[in-house]
Amino acid sequence: MIPLKEKIRIASGEGIADLLIKNGRVVEVFSGQIEKKDIAIYQGVIVGFGDYRAREIIDVKGDFLCPGLIDGHVHIESGMVTIPEFARAVLPNGTTTVVIDPHEIANVMGLNGIRFMAESAKGVPLNVFIMLPSCVPATHMETSGAILTADNLRSLFKETWAIGLAEMMNFPGVIFRDPEVLKKIEMAKGRRIDGHAPLLSGKGLYAYLTAGIQSDHECTTLKEAKEKLRNGMWIMIREGSTARNLKDLLPLVNPKNSRRFLFVTDDRHPKELLEEGHINTMVKEAIKLGIDPILAIQMVTLNAAEYFRLDALGAIAPGYRADIISFDHLGRFKIKKVFKDGVLVAEGGKMIARSAEPFLFSLESKKRPQRKGSIRVGTIKKDALLLRSDQPLAKVIQLIPGQILTKKAMKKILLRDGVAYPNIKEDILKIVVMERHRATGNIGIGFAQGFGIRRGAIGSSVSHDSHNFVIVGTNDGDILKATMAMKAMGGGLVVVLEGKVLASLPLPIAGLMAEASVSQVNLRLTALHRAAKTLGCKLPDPFMTLSFLSLPVIPELKITDKGLVDVNQFKIVPLFGENE
Amino acid sequence: MIPLKEKIRIASGEGIADLLIKNGRVVEVFSGQIEKKDIAIYQGVIVGFGDYRAREIIDVKGDFLCPGLIDGHVHIESGMVTIPEFARAVLPNGTTTVVIDPHEIANVMGLNGIRFMAESAKGVPLNVFIMLPSCVPATHMETSGAILTADNLRSLFKETWAIGLAEMMNFPGVIFRDPEVLKKIEMAKGRRIDGHAPLLSGKGLYAYLTAGIQSDHECTTLKEAKEKLRNGMWIMIREGSTARNLKDLLPLVNPKNSRRFLFVTDDRHPKELLEEGHINTMVKEAIKLGIDPILAIQMVTLNAAEYFRLDALGAIAPGYRADIISFDHLGRFKIKKVFKDGVLVAEGGKMIARSAEPFLFSLESKKRPQRKGSIRVGTIKKDALLLRSDQPLAKVIQLIPGQILTKKAMKKILLRDGVAYPNIKEDILKIVVMERHRATGNIGIGFAQGFGIRRGAIGSSVSHDSHNFVIVGTNDGDILKATMAMKAMGGGLVVVLEGKVLASLPLPIAGLMAEASVSQVNLRLTALHRAAKTLGCKLPDPFMTLSFLSLPVIPELKITDKGLVDVNQFKIVPLFGENE
Repeated sequence: MIPLKEKIRIASGEGIADLLIKNGRVVEVFSGQIEKKDIAIYQGVIVGFGDYRAREIIDVKGDFLCPGLIDGHVHIESGMVTIPEFARAVLPNGTTTVVIDPHEIANVMGLNGIRFMAESAKGVPLNVFIMLPSCVPATHMETSGAILTADNLRSLFKETWAIGLAEMMNFPGVIFRDPEVLKKIEMAKGRRIDGHAPLLSGKGLYAYLTAGIQSDHECTTLKEAKEKLRNGMWIMIREGSTARNLKDLLPLVNPKNSRRFLFVTDDRHPKELLEEGHINTMVKEAIKLGIDPILAIQMVTLNAAEYFRLDALGAIAPGYRADIISFDHLGRFKIKKVFKDGVLVAEGGKMIARSAEPFLFSLESKKRPQRKGSIRVGTIKKDALLLRSDQPLAKVIQLIPGQILTKKAMKKILLRDGVAYPNIKEDILKIVVMERHRATGNIGIGFAQGFGIRRGAIGSSVSHDSHNFVIVGTNDGDILKATMAMKAMGGGLVVVLEGKVLASLPLPIAGLMAEASVSQVNLRLTALHRAAKTLGCKLPDPFMTLSFLSLPVIPELKITDKGLVDVNQFKIVPLFGENE
Repeated sequence: MIPLKEKIRIASGEGIADLLIKNGRVVEVFSGQIEKKDIAIYQGVIVGFGDYRAREIIDVKGDFLCPGLIDGHVHIESGMVTIPEFARAVLPNGTTTVVIDPHEIANVMGLNGIRFMAESAKGVPLNVFIMLPSCVPATHMETSGAILTADNLRSLFKETWAIGLAEMMNFPGVIFRDPEVLKKIEMAKGRRIDGHAPLLSGKGLYAYLTAGIQSDHECTTLKEAKEKLRNGMWIMIREGSTARNLKDLLPLVNPKNSRRFLFVTDDRHPKELLEEGHINTMVKEAIKLGIDPILAIQMVTLNAAEYFRLDALGAIAPGYRADIISFDHLGRFKIKKVFKDGVLVAEGGKMIARSAEPFLFSLESKKRPQRKGSIRVGTIKKDALLLRSDQPLAKVIQLIPGQILTKKAMKKILLRDGVAYPNIKEDILKIVVMERHRATGNIGIGFAQGFGIRRGAIGSSVSHDSHNFVIVGTNDGDILKATMAMKAMGGGLVVVLEGKVLASLPLPIAGLMAEASVSQVNLRLTALHRAAKTLGCKLPDPFMTLSFLSLPVIPELKITDKGLVDVNQFKIVPLFGENE
């Protein structure tokens, strides 16, 4: 590493800088002004403005310059790619820093998963900071790949990339003072603790805040955000692939309170990453909605850096890292050049080859999890999926279009010789969750209504939050075939018809992420969706829907490897009969 | 300590709070709004708003409530009292938190001095955080009581009260990369590093910032503050007893940049502490000058807490410490009640007895420095002050009224039999700096013009930054008498005439602080000033003037125990003759 004294020397005007970015109109996030000036950079650090000698000069000809963008809360796993590939997708959009919560991979691989994420970020021109997942597993009603206690997590705080405790989703656990939850909070004292508390209000909210939770990205209404803001939470306004809150929350922002707002994406899927972009789309949209562009830029740069206490990030100033982006127009915010640590890594929406190549290989790291390594499913007996029943009335998971909430409905199932079958005419399919971390042989079986599938089966190893195999289908043969196919791929998504795989996406990394680029993944996803349609599926994204049917914290009826979960009662219930 | 879970329990509405402050109009520093609501407090922490049961209720009847005020940079030694007494003076003014730089006591007693300050804050209802003095001693041209290296200081960062590195006054040392200076900066990495760089601009400033310096409290003009703000410095606007910058700098503040401003006092002497107040006067004045009261309050609460990363301070919100003040009117900002950790400690400008008493005794701490312990002066020979010269032309320190700058002037001195005498007719007095830490016997002797003293002598053990004895007088007898008197008191201020002490203020703690209240000290100071006037002195505060004549970093001519210092040449020069 270049010693501090060398940087000071260049800053003071002695010696020669590496790069001078000339003729930029610099957005000064501290003063809130725009100033035309030249930026001198040495060893990845901004060392001064104005008249410096430099080895290289890049003239941005009056373009605007602002700090690289910071996404304050993102689950990279939702992009279904590794960090290097995620970086290739978001860097051209101006994102130079992400604060990630590796909650998904942690549910599969525990500490090793978190370490893998940190490891795979090495050499990648993207700053990656990690908030330690606070809720692994999500509930006791499912089998995850790992259980992370406060004592487990504590060891990671030695690492510079571990900067806080990620979204504390278990807000009832906080309010009702679950000892392990409080232990995690106390362990993180002095660091940031992110919240996740949809609709929490009044005394419940006060209790949550008294515990020390500092932010929230789950606000959906102005009223909710207002209450959380005034009571001390940093408000992370979210625009994910599905949850989109910018339009609703932005009217709350004004110059007196804007410092307490960040922009985050939470979950962005390959399609939106490709077609819409990343956090830059939020800046664009916010400006369109009428916010002062300077405030919008502050929110995705300085504010995030201040909240997370990221020294030397979030501003164009001496001593700061030279993460700088150029754009053409304050109103349009169309990103042109992206400098990471003073190196031009992307331009005109594309990575620059010389920068893109080296980090494609960072996955060769020794700490990289082995392909298929995360899948441990034993042999499945032929009749493992057979459902015996003496009564035809079953609790059925009813999909609600466009939501991850479901309804619980009592429906008549087809019964033949004491065996229950899907009622395809009524769109009631069999849904199976198969434990895939420890080969316990756990299988949860139920029925789901609303997919529209009339033949075959679809399956996924992405299934929140424990990421067991989840398969929905019309017959046991295809459901089993889907399982086998996923096992063979080491995890992934699959569409099966009459014993044949019609389409698939291998996700060999923890069953969550591909060894491919975002666009390659997206092509496969498109093929999967097309194949699902040939089965009769009517949903725009059946895999997304499928992946949330196993999340037992969202009402009303869900299914895990341990069985059917009545979320309102927060317990496992029998599939057949009205009882319970 | 009350466990977290108890606080959460009370917040959630179970159990009974300690205190409910009813009917306050709460200044919400996060949202920038004012909201009428009741505040529930439990074990010194705010746990919620609204309808809570509480053991005690205090009705503030519509008064405004805001967080306790934070002074972001203050040398408590300038108040000439200990922390408990300082607290008694500032708490009624609404100050509940101070970030101190114990630079003066550190120059006398080193690490023990810093530890003493931390120790003496214990049990005092004032949050005291310490920035570690970065420049002890100030120069190599004087003898201080201690030398603090990076390695010395590092050990203190184990303490929770040590939060950063105090004002880096040696900005040339930074820019020119003095290894020990850079070592201190690198040692403080990840913590706040305060700056002190009057008039530093352009590449010098960039170099200083590239090193990692983060704030400045020395701006005197709008232009200077603007440059420092936009380049990333937090601007601490200062209103000390002498340096007053609020009026000049406030026009720079607007809602888009105000988050980067703090208010600080730096140095407030007993008179101003008593007659004007503390940081509250800055809020008042700022509002009078037209700033939005909410912004002004943010600057002395939230902004300071954010800059110094003081968790749970600077806001009235659940989980925050119940440091709360009430005031009558947004425009007037006259402070009424002061709650520290949920306890009413002051009201109507006065301490409340039950709170004031316990911490008066915290000075009984074992770590307290012994009376007279800091003074080590050997026997002084009768002719020690005799000045022999063969030429009458000497370099004379000329005072500039109202400034700590001096002029260097060549003046004719009275010569009789090869001995030089003060020229009282021309107001040229003898000035002596006597080393008092290590009994080296070092004596610097020179001449000063501008005191107006026509007989006797005045002396001080407060003399920046090494705090040796400094005495100015008309004759050697009285100068020696002043020295003896200061030695006998264990340090202090003294006025002597014809061998008799006319007035004195003992400062037995490091020769800097009294064992008395601010008002007792102020009475003594008034008597000292009156006595100095009887000697003919024309200066409003001769001791203040005297204390800066030994500071060899302020031009042009100063004096230390090592001799006369030409500050522009930054070296010791001979007293007589024009040479050098």
